[in-house]
Amino acid sequence: MINKFEITKNNERIVLSNDLIKLTIKLSNKKEIHAIKELLANVHPGDLADLLTFLNSEQRTFLLENLDENVYTSVLAEIDDSILDETIKSLDKKEVAKAISDMETNDAVSLIESLEPVDQQKILNEVSDEDREIFQESLNYPEDSAGRRMQKEYVALPSFWTVGQTIDYLREEIDLPNDFLEIFVVDPMNKPLGNIPVSRVLRSSKNKFLSKIMQDNPILIPAIMDQEEVAYEFEKYSLVSAGVIDELGKLIGRITADDVVWVLQEEAEEDILLLGGVSETEANQNILQSVRKRFIWLFLNLLTAILASIVISLFDASIEKMVALAVLMPIIASMGGNAGTQTLTLTIRSLATRELIDSNRSKILNKEIGISFLNGIIFSIITGLLSYIWFRDLNLSLIVGTAIIVNIFSAGIFGFIIPYALNSMKIDPAIASSVFVTTVTDVVGFFCFLGLASIFLN
Amino acid sequence: MINKFEITKNNERIVLSNDLIKLTIKLSNKKEIHAIKELLANVHPGDLADLLTFLNSEQRTFLLENLDENVYTSVLAEIDDSILDETIKSLDKKEVAKAISDMETNDAVSLIESLEPVDQQKILNEVSDEDREIFQESLNYPEDSAGRRMQKEYVALPSFWTVGQTIDYLREEIDLPNDFLEIFVVDPMNKPLGNIPVSRVLRSSKNKFLSKIMQDNPILIPAIMDQEEVAYEFEKYSLVSAGVIDELGKLIGRITADDVVWVLQEEAEEDILLLGGVSETEANQNILQSVRKRFIWLFLNLLTAILASIVISLFDASIEKMVALAVLMPIIASMGGNAGTQTLTLTIRSLATRELIDSNRSKILNKEIGISFLNGIIFSIITGLLSYIWFRDLNLSLIVGTAIIVNIFSAGIFGFIIPYALNSMKIDPAIASSVFVTTVTDVVGFFCFLGLASIFLN
Repeated sequence: MINKFEITKNNERIVLSNDLIKLTIKLSNKKEIHAIKELLANVHPGDLADLLTFLNSEQRTFLLENLDENVYTSVLAEIDDSILDETIKSLDKKEVAKAISDMETNDAVSLIESLEPVDQQKILNEVSDEDREIFQESLNYPEDSAGRRMQKEYVALPSFWTVGQTIDYLREEIDLPNDFLEIFVVDPMNKPLGNIPVSRVLRSSKNKFLSKIMQDNPILIPAIMDQEEVAYEFEKYSLVSAGVIDELGKLIGRITADDVVWVLQEEAEEDILLLGGVSETEANQNILQSVRKRFIWLFLNLLTAILASIVISLFDASIEKMVALAVLMPIIASMGGNAGTQTLTLTIRSLATRELIDSNRSKILNKEIGISFLNGIIFSIITGLLSYIWFRDLNLSLIVGTAIIVNIFSAGIFGFIIPYALNSMKIDPAIASSVFVTTVTDVVGFFCFLGLASIFLN
Repeated sequence: MINKFEITKNNERIVLSNDLIKLTIKLSNKKEIHAIKELLANVHPGDLADLLTFLNSEQRTFLLENLDENVYTSVLAEIDDSILDETIKSLDKKEVAKAISDMETNDAVSLIESLEPVDQQKILNEVSDEDREIFQESLNYPEDSAGRRMQKEYVALPSFWTVGQTIDYLREEIDLPNDFLEIFVVDPMNKPLGNIPVSRVLRSSKNKFLSKIMQDNPILIPAIMDQEEVAYEFEKYSLVSAGVIDELGKLIGRITADDVVWVLQEEAEEDILLLGGVSETEANQNILQSVRKRFIWLFLNLLTAILASIVISLFDASIEKMVALAVLMPIIASMGGNAGTQTLTLTIRSLATRELIDSNRSKILNKEIGISFLNGIIFSIITGLLSYIWFRDLNLSLIVGTAIIVNIFSAGIFGFIIPYALNSMKIDPAIASSVFVTTVTDVVGFFCFLGLASIFLN
């Protein structure tokens, strides 16, 4: 029997999870209500949310329905996007609506926005008019914007209050957020003048005015700012909390670093998966859904591979005469493709981290050209030598060498230009760059290699 | 002339940066001390640190030497790793040591650990014995561990204190961290019993005991935990701050979410770059350094491409007889390579996010097999048809189709097994998986395609 308490010991968590998962599945299948309640009573909602991803739909519903109300709310707030839709569909809408009303606004909005429109409507119909209006205000901001991620509960006070007044107010006022990291100092129009970390309020003497202990010029996040941009602001300024303002500069909410951590995980995941040709995590998609999503990418790749084939077919006479050309083709393609991927990856990353901007664009491009040129020469010599050792044909070696230089060089240039251009057109460069770049390097490489061969090897 | 104040307006930051960078470069080159001080007076240290990455070494030193002491300290704490070494070398070691002593311990340790050993020693020689000991304690923990990332300044109080006592203590005690997000409640052995968000202290009545308002069973981070693991803990439990404990369970520091944000950016960057065959950001490496680093990867790829060439050369007689085989080769290679990359990317990501663990390994592998099998069939039909339309040769089409099924299928299996095996051997699967997987798909694909052709197309 598992000591249920040990799940909260972080350093042993993963090892224990395997057993816990197995036992949870067993108890869920047997519908052992009492045993599962006991087993999960001391498991953290964050772990419960993780646990759900390892269960099937029926087990999940059984587990959720047997949680205490506040745990149920916390687990729903943390539930993984990939299983959200399916899970919500199986739950009582009134209970979900109740849980959502109890969440912090940002958690509620994150949950609602991830649902299918029909479920969104069902849930919104069940919440109070007041809550619906609050959620709708956030949902009116663009997807992935700060407005969607903000908590609307915050503490804002006038600058002429003293620390003593502030403490009294905080102690007596009931309608305040559960926890908050900073107090905003605002003018009568609710525009932020400064902010005060809560610990500073605690440490200041009672007769000090808030205006005297606040930080001026606080970093503020416009509600329309993209969440990825928000994450960079948090990193750059080492923030744990920041106010969110509307287009008039009025304070309308706050974002805290725990939400930014979530955003960063999500965005990193998205970038890596896009670069690999997968649209999103498939953990809880069925096989047919996954096949369909991957099909599109593979089909795009097939079309571009056909381009390479067409180039080869232009020179089939040369290949017939000298089959060594066919033997060396993978080397040409592979060197260009990989050199292109290197430049591409760095360019996409530099764009994402704002290290590549207009003012250093040509400097970075020139450097890529230099690197490609040098690596092109190095590998042209290596492959030329290799091909000479293999085929004892000086002309062939010279052609291989030339093709490698041209290919690695063009890989460097297009590996930079393609993502840069996509980014300028407001297209996420992670999506399609790699297909374009490898197509260019295949076509350029084969054309150069086989073209030269058809001219000089007759 | 730029309105220097506008740089702090987040929503216009990037556009302005271009001008600010240009002007900074101009003024630095002309050594205009007065003008540059005025220009940068109201720029946030986080922006100044970013600004440095766009300057050359001489401009950087000039700028840093003309900053106020506290701004100098903040900028050094935020400076990008890629320019750190070069920058520190050019600065006065006494001033750097003074700045480091003024930083929070985690910022100081992050800076020191990134320096070359000789510079590390120079700096450590200049700081006080007490500071050196503090830094050394953190540096004794493994690289990238929580022990390296923690701030050693924290507030820990006994559980029998009241809120009133606590507030009085915090107001009077001088030797406390600047800002803190939670108060730890500890036993006489300094083992954490609970934690209290600072806002909760503010909101509780004065006569309450800390034991009554603390959260029990706080999430604690062992100092030896890897920083990536720490980030997952923060995400899972939505933390903004957590205590760090030593092997005896005693509180020795705290980690806050702003540092986790930094860790996540760094780790995401590392993963993406590794997958793309680049070891690290090259922003401030010179061309030769970049060439050398990328060379290794390209050379590894060359070796694996030679394997593919050898397979082709085994069947050169068949290609000579039927050059269509050479024409279709890129399609075989490309489909296998891309299908393999898809599985690979998902597997690496699932391993990183702990979605793939022992208890669901075979479930995920079976799913990959299913997906690969279905996409294999689909693309076998498509490419078979295409090749028939192109070459009007039924046997060739059947061979192409068979090779595509085998190749996509093996891509799925090896795209899963290779990163999984590397991970089990404690090797970061992002490093080498893609080379291995594409080699396997190339070799399997060509062998199957050309082998079948040599048997059936005579």
